[in-house]
Amino acid sequence: MLTYKAPLRDIKFLINDVFDYQTHYKSLDNGENADPETVDMILQGMADFAENVLAPLYQPADAEGCHFENGVVTTPKGFKDAYDQFVEGGWQGISYPEQYGGMNLPTSLNLIKAEMIGTANWPWAMYPGLSTGCINTILQYGTDEQKETYLHKLVEGSWAGTMCLTEPQCGTDLGQVKSKAIPQDDGSYKLGGTKIFISSGEHDLTDNIIHIVLARLPDAPEGTRGISLFIVPKFLPNAEGESGERNGVSCGSIEHKMGINSSATCVLNFDNAVGYLIGEPNKGLKAMFTFMNTARIGTGIQGLAHTELSFQNALPYAKDRRSMRTLSGTKDPEKVADAIIHHADVRRMLLTQKAFAEGGRSMIYHSARYADKMAQGIINGDDEEFEKWDDKLGFYTPILKGFLTELGIEAAKHGQQVYGGHGYIKEWGMELIARDARIATMYEGTTGIQALDLLGRKVILQSKGKIIRDYTSSIMKWCGEYALDKDMRKFVWALTKLCAEWNTLTVRLMLMARKDREIISAASDDFLMYSGYVMMGYHWARMAAVAYDKLENGGTESPEFYKAKIQTAEFYFDKLLPRTSGHAEGMVAPSSSMTAMKIENFAFLD
Amino acid sequence: MLTYKAPLRDIKFLINDVFDYQTHYKSLDNGENADPETVDMILQGMADFAENVLAPLYQPADAEGCHFENGVVTTPKGFKDAYDQFVEGGWQGISYPEQYGGMNLPTSLNLIKAEMIGTANWPWAMYPGLSTGCINTILQYGTDEQKETYLHKLVEGSWAGTMCLTEPQCGTDLGQVKSKAIPQDDGSYKLGGTKIFISSGEHDLTDNIIHIVLARLPDAPEGTRGISLFIVPKFLPNAEGESGERNGVSCGSIEHKMGINSSATCVLNFDNAVGYLIGEPNKGLKAMFTFMNTARIGTGIQGLAHTELSFQNALPYAKDRRSMRTLSGTKDPEKVADAIIHHADVRRMLLTQKAFAEGGRSMIYHSARYADKMAQGIINGDDEEFEKWDDKLGFYTPILKGFLTELGIEAAKHGQQVYGGHGYIKEWGMELIARDARIATMYEGTTGIQALDLLGRKVILQSKGKIIRDYTSSIMKWCGEYALDKDMRKFVWALTKLCAEWNTLTVRLMLMARKDREIISAASDDFLMYSGYVMMGYHWARMAAVAYDKLENGGTESPEFYKAKIQTAEFYFDKLLPRTSGHAEGMVAPSSSMTAMKIENFAFLD
Repeated sequence: MLTYKAPLRDIKFLINDVFDYQTHYKSLDNGENADPETVDMILQGMADFAENVLAPLYQPADAEGCHFENGVVTTPKGFKDAYDQFVEGGWQGISYPEQYGGMNLPTSLNLIKAEMIGTANWPWAMYPGLSTGCINTILQYGTDEQKETYLHKLVEGSWAGTMCLTEPQCGTDLGQVKSKAIPQDDGSYKLGGTKIFISSGEHDLTDNIIHIVLARLPDAPEGTRGISLFIVPKFLPNAEGESGERNGVSCGSIEHKMGINSSATCVLNFDNAVGYLIGEPNKGLKAMFTFMNTARIGTGIQGLAHTELSFQNALPYAKDRRSMRTLSGTKDPEKVADAIIHHADVRRMLLTQKAFAEGGRSMIYHSARYADKMAQGIINGDDEEFEKWDDKLGFYTPILKGFLTELGIEAAKHGQQVYGGHGYIKEWGMELIARDARIATMYEGTTGIQALDLLGRKVILQSKGKIIRDYTSSIMKWCGEYALDKDMRKFVWALTKLCAEWNTLTVRLMLMARKDREIISAASDDFLMYSGYVMMGYHWARMAAVAYDKLENGGTESPEFYKAKIQTAEFYFDKLLPRTSGHAEGMVAPSSSMTAMKIENFAFLD
Repeated sequence: MLTYKAPLRDIKFLINDVFDYQTHYKSLDNGENADPETVDMILQGMADFAENVLAPLYQPADAEGCHFENGVVTTPKGFKDAYDQFVEGGWQGISYPEQYGGMNLPTSLNLIKAEMIGTANWPWAMYPGLSTGCINTILQYGTDEQKETYLHKLVEGSWAGTMCLTEPQCGTDLGQVKSKAIPQDDGSYKLGGTKIFISSGEHDLTDNIIHIVLARLPDAPEGTRGISLFIVPKFLPNAEGESGERNGVSCGSIEHKMGINSSATCVLNFDNAVGYLIGEPNKGLKAMFTFMNTARIGTGIQGLAHTELSFQNALPYAKDRRSMRTLSGTKDPEKVADAIIHHADVRRMLLTQKAFAEGGRSMIYHSARYADKMAQGIINGDDEEFEKWDDKLGFYTPILKGFLTELGIEAAKHGQQVYGGHGYIKEWGMELIARDARIATMYEGTTGIQALDLLGRKVILQSKGKIIRDYTSSIMKWCGEYALDKDMRKFVWALTKLCAEWNTLTVRLMLMARKDREIISAASDDFLMYSGYVMMGYHWARMAAVAYDKLENGGTESPEFYKAKIQTAEFYFDKLLPRTSGHAEGMVAPSSSMTAMKIENFAFLD
């Protein structure tokens, strides 16, 4: 049976010692709300809820799955009760304005909340998670009336929300969206069309579900420039602001999936459904793009979540299971065999999980500070402020989303592997983590899309490589300060070399791309993974630097805690960072290696 | 819906053009039976059965799973009928002696058969597959009477067999086996104990199931030197040689697993079960080891099978699904968007699958020739002959098993990824391939065990590195012949460099291991993967050489077929072989990176 303990000591190490959130919070309008006591209270409260309410539901709910009958979706046993407790605690609204009933705390705390509830029970966490996308959309693009109508209930959590983008013929390529919105005399619209893969599209957790729907106006231009956004409530709000008349949106079926079985993935049919335009006509896709950063950090968190959960549950098994004696001699002489955690190869798997989890968390908590600034821009209606931080975040999000979700899959695989054959048995739960982790590289933009966004859009098109020069120069500057430090030099020399290589590779790809556009697609996956490993290396070096400092000057944790951070950094640099070499070589391979083969020659099966 | 076509053209390219099986068959006692017409007939017959009978059952059977009630296991709909056809066709016995009703064809054809039925429907193929282990045991270690009693039925397929090794407390570490065998006055034994994870341990496909069971005699030494092998039939054979009295072995439950749901994984309880000693007392583990090579090649085939199946089913989707335009411009102007197979990054995934499948098949078909020789030793009762080829094979099997099954997982992941979100939906079947592929790195010795077997046992302990020197020198010699060839030199230079590196790394690890035994475990996974990639590189170079030759001098296939082989080899060398760099760096990392951390410091969750 899987269990979860919120890693509060690791979390506090990051927010206090590595990133000094308190100083950062002083630069935010709502930062004063997040004093140390409040932060501690939020962390502890969320940890309790995640550990005690959500975690025990995770495995049974997967076995039960969601139920679908006559358009009605029933979530697994215990989900509704847990959701009610979540609403009761006011957890949905912690980072939203007090005006709508929120606690007006920084968004970074909401991301830490998302990590905890997502690690305990990812499919459950998707229900409030999807509401977040809906709330953000209305907050940024809604009229005052729309905000008044929807945000109180959504922020409270008594209503939920969704994002309805995908259709049968298109996911990534939203220019192919066919759903129609016909203007009505009263200023509303009637929507028609079918949306698929709508997470939380229908369920029994809330009184109402507010769908944000991408559709086309009758006179809309073709492609991505003709897509508008609509609010389509399941029940139309009545004069009292409560759920009123049933709207023409219904759930046609739920998908049978590899995992996240207790998250309802719905086919939604819109049949003369009343909708309300939100934002400007035909500017829907641009509006969507402004949320991608948040949504993609959210999915990056899934990579972290499944890495952490798999690690936490592989570790006790590795201490408990006994097999053979280690190569350097007997470790547990009084036992029939040594615990497998003594075997170096088993440690390699556990340390890979640990390095990915703590390194990934550091990457997310670093970016969360930009998310705080960006959210402030939204709440203040300050577009310039929003865009500045959204841009800044834009470099990190494809890496957080693309890289960390790939690592989540790998980590979950290691977790199963530590269990041997038992890792394949449902009872233990390790296979559930692997099944649930698998979706993360597919939804919210596949890894391929993240890779293209990073290399093609952010690095080459928008910045001509400057974004890499800036980022690596900041790393090199940091490294320079430790160049002669006897403890840190092993890390900073390796990192400096990689920063130089990263720049060289970027320039080389830009030069290649002048004559050969396909190199961008051909190289993108290697570039993404390379970037991720170097970035995580930087985070491990920073964590090691803090740990060395605390060992010397004293910290709130025991010396063993800091030593473990340093040892994990060493492991990362020795065993994981070398993966950059293969990606470096691979990314500059000619695109013809991929493009030359004729389509009909991929297989000769006739 | 998943489909399967046996890749007969690829198969024939290998057995005719690359490995010249006909010349090899002339060196075998039973080789004359495998004339070209017979081989063709076998391949075509097996392909028809796999494509038309087995493949359509694969997905529905997964959804249905095996049924368990009161100790009785019922396989999914259609399994029994397919099995009857299999027996009817005499397919179980193709590589066994005519004396027992077999066709006396070389074992290599049985491996090709295993590939086809396993690719079409792996869980189904496990039923006859497990019988193979049982047949081989009796063939090599049984008395004449035991052979007469069991082999006719087993070779025919009307009885099935199992291998009962694992117990709740031990899988890898069989020294911990507790099952007991008490001698009886009539020369038989009474067995007691519990075995778990017994594939095909109970089912409705055959009249009888013959279990090969590892257990301890009362006076047996502790550990691995006190394990004996027993034949324990589900029904004791009666005087007429048919299934008689029910024996004291029963199925307690079947496991609920991540995948291979239609293969029954049983808990078997032995309660005063009548058993017959096979082979020498206390020499059971050694006997088991002699089959590991065959069993592990069989599992290596699973890696190939799931790679091939995922590739075959990702390809048509990539041709059909449309999204965006490629970076170099519109490819399908008359369509709403380009087929995703035009995108270089999608091609990267497909070509990775293709390179793994065809490269893995080449590695298996190469070793299959040694398996032919080894099998001849068994059938002729020639221990020296057996051991010679078993030793030879021993170098390849951990790589085939360890490396190819890891690639199977990766390939299945790419197949899902090509489908985007649809890769997560059960209906399409891509997630089923991923779930089924996952078990292959865990059973039949985990990847960690293969890695330790390769580096610790085969390379260092048994040969002091000679096995690598010999293998690489044979590659280098082959490369030398192409050093100035304008087509081949790009491959052979890269390979030669890697061969030199492989030797250097091996020597370095041996030197490190003198002072630090743990380096063998710490380095083993990187060493295994490194070895696999170089070996597969050699196979791709060989296939490319044959393809160039056929292009110049004419072959039975179209030039496009050979061009595709060369292009896939180029892709492999450009994009996949560079992964060796990271493994090379990683394997020489100090073992302290893994061993230094105190067990209690892996996590700070209290």
